[in-house]
Amino acid sequence: MKPARPSSLAALGEDGLIPFLTRGWKGDRTVLAGAGDDCAVLRAPGRGKTLLFKTDAVAEGVHFTAATPAAAVGRKALARALSDIAAMGGVPTHALVTLAVPPGTTPQRLAGLYRGLTRLAREHGVNLVGGETLRAKQLLLSIALLGETSAPPVLRSGGRPGDDLWVTGTLGATRKRKHLAFTPRLAEGGWLAKHRLARAMMDLSDGLAADLPRLAAASRTSFAIDFSALPLTRGATVAAALGDGEDYELLFAADPRHRARLEKAWPFPTRLTRIGLLCPNRRGVSSTPLGHGFDHFQR
Amino acid sequence: MKPARPSSLAALGEDGLIPFLTRGWKGDRTVLAGAGDDCAVLRAPGRGKTLLFKTDAVAEGVHFTAATPAAAVGRKALARALSDIAAMGGVPTHALVTLAVPPGTTPQRLAGLYRGLTRLAREHGVNLVGGETLRAKQLLLSIALLGETSAPPVLRSGGRPGDDLWVTGTLGATRKRKHLAFTPRLAEGGWLAKHRLARAMMDLSDGLAADLPRLAAASRTSFAIDFSALPLTRGATVAAALGDGEDYELLFAADPRHRARLEKAWPFPTRLTRIGLLCPNRRGVSSTPLGHGFDHFQR
Repeated sequence: MKPARPSSLAALGEDGLIPFLTRGWKGDRTVLAGAGDDCAVLRAPGRGKTLLFKTDAVAEGVHFTAATPAAAVGRKALARALSDIAAMGGVPTHALVTLAVPPGTTPQRLAGLYRGLTRLAREHGVNLVGGETLRAKQLLLSIALLGETSAPPVLRSGGRPGDDLWVTGTLGATRKRKHLAFTPRLAEGGWLAKHRLARAMMDLSDGLAADLPRLAAASRTSFAIDFSALPLTRGATVAAALGDGEDYELLFAADPRHRARLEKAWPFPTRLTRIGLLCPNRRGVSSTPLGHGFDHFQR
Repeated sequence: MKPARPSSLAALGEDGLIPFLTRGWKGDRTVLAGAGDDCAVLRAPGRGKTLLFKTDAVAEGVHFTAATPAAAVGRKALARALSDIAAMGGVPTHALVTLAVPPGTTPQRLAGLYRGLTRLAREHGVNLVGGETLRAKQLLLSIALLGETSAPPVLRSGGRPGDDLWVTGTLGATRKRKHLAFTPRLAEGGWLAKHRLARAMMDLSDGLAADLPRLAAASRTSFAIDFSALPLTRGATVAAALGDGEDYELLFAADPRHRARLEKAWPFPTRLTRIGLLCPNRRGVSSTPLGHGFDHFQR
């Protein structure tokens, strides 16, 4: 039951849709049972490893439009979750895909979503091991992702007053340019964790203005930013760098004694910029005002 | 920022909503970092254990209505995923919650969802370790669930011709009665796996008529059912027992030499009924016709 170009979801049915969408999925030796059983069955990580667990969803009308190429939507859904694994310094391993789909959606659009998703999964060695489809009013794609790390995962809470603040890449103006095609900073995050060079880290999904205060709060610090140091995407303003969201760059706090080492040893073409520092969290000391980032329930 | 009765989602904002909804979540010693960081960080299962990984979603208008009590919806979302872990003979351990929410939803309704979910999680020792909220047109709640097992997980594919087919509990008429309040058969599934008494197993979510052919196909067998043996929910017809869906009982195949042992040793008040057998998958031998179960894209 694998028609080459099925004409509708109803023609495929639920039992036909899954094999149609998951063609080309194959797991490595950690996948003991993948799509098609009640659960995925996975070999547990070996001794000394820590599990990472994350979900992330994108919805039509919020994160993409009806005009967005389907493969880019599928790619983005997975890339966002990968970015969170990167922010822990981890390695992504297994993913499940939940697809909420309006009945009129064409099988070709769904196949496009899965194509983008499957390609990015393969690039990063992520096993796609199942998921589910359900009827809904709005197209929504949610990824549940497992990862692991041997190094201690880099939490948001490990920053200390006096730590330098760094960001990878450039910030701002990404809604139009980069939000569909960004590269999750898995190599960079993994390197920072392995060499114990980041004390606190997160990925910038809602913009520096929304995300930096979260890192500072988790670390019980305030912060100071040098606006003139912000690495702007070509054509972006400082306001855009603070508020645009969807940069998916890494923000991290590092011991200032490691400053020279970081700059010298950084092995990636990705830009690395020191943008400020964490400050003591004392009454009367307030952080640099940053304006607003993206809030799902206030726009 | 925890108002006792926040008046709207916009008043709470994204950074206020999460602490409001996740009050009362606390993890055991396997939770190294829970809600509030980029990922949940979890101690990996010990030696000899296998990981189970599952997602399941419910949407308003499909699995519940605007009139369904919110706590029952939250409970159901988690219970469905637990039922899949039960069908592997596993123990559920950690869950993430994805909530897609129309902007007009009251914080009280969301709090109700989380209350039902949190209570069931506590009953089964499941750690709620994070998740996310996003704007959407339709209320949708998706659970990503991790579990583990020491015994070999019971797949759908292990059945053999000649195996007895058994079901737990009663079947049918559950859309009106039981679909919100069913008990995931975790104890029963775990016992069957531990004692190696089930060769193939699944949970009945779409009705016996849809689900049994899936188990038989995975086991490369056909099947025969004794309709007069089906354990009917009070007031249910045979057609309802076959087609209603949402029974969330376990269906399993067992070696017929274990028949007496199973009946004698079964330690649960839950009813256990032999309903038929798996048959050789030869040309010309066809399975008992069962009619149709629930198909998400054909109703």
